[in-house]
Parts: sequence; C-alpha cells; structure tokens
Amino acid sequence: MKQSLGARTLLVPTPVLMVGTYGPTGTPNLMNAAWGGICCSDPPCVTVSVRTSRHTYDNIVQRKAFTVGIANEATVVEADYVGIASGRDVDKFAAAGLTHVAGEHVDAPYAAEFPLVLECRLRHTLELGIHTQFIGEIVDVKADEAILGEDGLPDILKIRPLVYDTAHKGYHAVGQLVGKAFSAGKKLL
Amino acid sequence: MKQSLGARTLLVPTPVLMVGTYGPTGTPNLMNAAWGGICCSDPPCVTVSVRTSRHTYDNIVQRKAFTVGIANEATVVEADYVGIASGRDVDKFAAAGLTHVAGEHVDAPYAAEFPLVLECRLRHTLELGIHTQFIGEIVDVKADEAILGEDGLPDILKIRPLVYDTAHKGYHAVGQLVGKAFSAGKKLL
Repeated sequence: MKQSLGARTLLVPTPVLMVGTYGPTGTPNLMNAAWGGICCSDPPCVTVSVRTSRHTYDNIVQRKAFTVGIANEATVVEADYVGIASGRDVDKFAAAGLTHVAGEHVDAPYAAEFPLVLECRLRHTLELGIHTQFIGEIVDVKADEAILGEDGLPDILKIRPLVYDTAHKGYHAVGQLVGKAFSAGKKLL
Repeated sequence: MKQSLGARTLLVPTPVLMVGTYGPTGTPNLMNAAWGGICCSDPPCVTVSVRTSRHTYDNIVQRKAFTVGIANEATVVEADYVGIASGRDVDKFAAAGLTHVAGEHVDAPYAAEFPLVLECRLRHTLELGIHTQFIGEIVDVKADEAILGEDGLPDILKIRPLVYDTAHKGYHAVGQLVGKAFSAGKKLL
C-alpha cells in the first residue's frame, strides 16, 4: 500500500541542462534547467521549461534559438552558480570563468566547458502555467573528443553528467551499468 | 574544439518511465518511455512522448489519463520487458508478474512494484513528428514507505531509479552525491 504525497513534481532522475541564450545587447547567458529533455526522435527535438520571469525567457522569445549543454561532475560549481545568479545582473560566463562560444548553426552561445552541447532552433512555445515549455529542433550536437566511445558516440561514463534529485536538491553522479536495454527483459518473453 | 555529431537525440541523463494506461477492453498496459519528464511546477505537469503506432497512444487519447511509474534497479528486467513486448499482443502485467493497481484519481493503472508513481490527467497533446507529446497534470504522487527519507520525501538513494543512456542503450544506477544545489555555486557569487 503506497502513501499519497499529493500533487507534486516528484520524478527522478532529471537532467541538469545549461540553457545558453543571448541577451538583448548580445551578452551570452546560461540558465540551469531540470525541467526538460528529449521529446521527439524525428525531427530530433528537445524541451526546456522556463519561468516567464527569467532572463532566458525573453532571450529565447527574441532570438528563437538556444543551446543545451550537459553539466557534469567537473562543472558542478559552475552549473549551480548559473542557477543562483541572474543574467540581468551579471555576465555569468565572465563571473564563472566559462568560455563563450557562438553557436555554429543557431543564434545562441554555449560554454566550451560542458562536454556535450545541443544547438536548437525554436519550434514550439507552450504556456503551461508558471512555466513555459520551449521545444527546439536539435540542428547539431557537439561533443568533446574525450567523451566519445570507440563507436564515436558519447559515453555516459566519460561524460559523467549530473543527475538531479529535485526532492532533496542534490546533484548525483551516474553509477555503474545495471542492465542493457532491449536485452535484460528478454527472459520474460 | 568540439566535434560535430549531427542532428541527434543525444542528451543524458534520461529517466526510465513506466507509462500506465488501460486498453480498449480495460486490459492494463505499460510502456517504457525515455522521452519525458517534469515540464511545469504549477500546475505540476509531466510530459511523455509516444509514437502514434504505439498501443499506449490510442489508450491515452481514449481515456485522457495515464500514470508514470519510476523504474528502478529492482525492476530493471520488468522495465525492459515492457519496452520490448506490445500490449496489443500480450497482457504485460500478467506476463511480467506485475501487480495491477487501479489509479485512485485517474482512469489509468499502475504496477505496485514501481516504488514511485504519478497519477496524471491529460492536459495537452502536441504532434511533433514521429512522436506525440502528451502533457499530464500530476494529480497525485504515490510512494512506497521504504523509499521515503526522514522528511517524508522520496530519497533517490532509496528509490535507486534507473538512469538511461540512449547512445549505448544502457540502464545505469544513480551514484553518490557530488554537490548540493543552491549551495555548490555560492563560491562564485
């Protein structure tokens, strides 16, 4: 018998997404988002939810583009800082010592320090309540060579992405492999 | 200098969501979804993306409700099985030995074996391409007492949820705490 905890946003795991945008005068900015992820395989799309009060909200509406960087163990301090400071008050890239790179395909920047980055063009905007959901089409993925496996694809144990626990506001590491998809369940077929 | 990997759905981590629905004759069904997560804090909403060809697609359209169970290390075989078999061909609950429980607030079932479950009422449907995004308002969260911390909230290290690596189709464990949110970044303020 389960206990009822009420209507709450208790889902695990969530990612730690670094949403990169340009402000009105071209200052690069980053936001820390846990509400987001892949939402379509073809065309490849990603969603990030942003409060209307955020600097990033105006930036995405204006430029119709954003990037999504994957925060990892090596960048946990920078990733958390991005979620505390506001781009209206400070140049977060400069304050955190992050290296600004202009997107190749979209009008949005990213930080070189995040090992995996998605360049996204805004496709849909959905007002849900306190958050607005922005859906971007992924036009390119960029990766550091150091995180690629022998097959040329990103290796999660090399990326070491942060796993966010919303209930206790904790950033966790990714642990060991516990099963292979499309394989572990075959014994029940 | 990063390498370009093209337009692909390479984002980590993603969750392993067990989407519970009723079929046309009332047979309970489960789908394994990695494309989904929280998308609004108030009203609390969750998104799951489903291909139109899936049994779950028709079920959500018909009943306008679904549940989201969190798959964990203890249920990795069942969770993967759910992603291999189709509810059109087999009663997945029966085949996997899962215990069917009717949702308390919505017209959808869940499996008792998943330690954390969200009951959701369909709010929005967005056709994106090969996937359709369903957004549900979370009307209740149900949790096993064994996964609750001393503060009464779910403890990620007790849940032991699966972390999915889409590039290499691997289910991973959650690792140790590497930083506290709204705290680790203060040294850069």
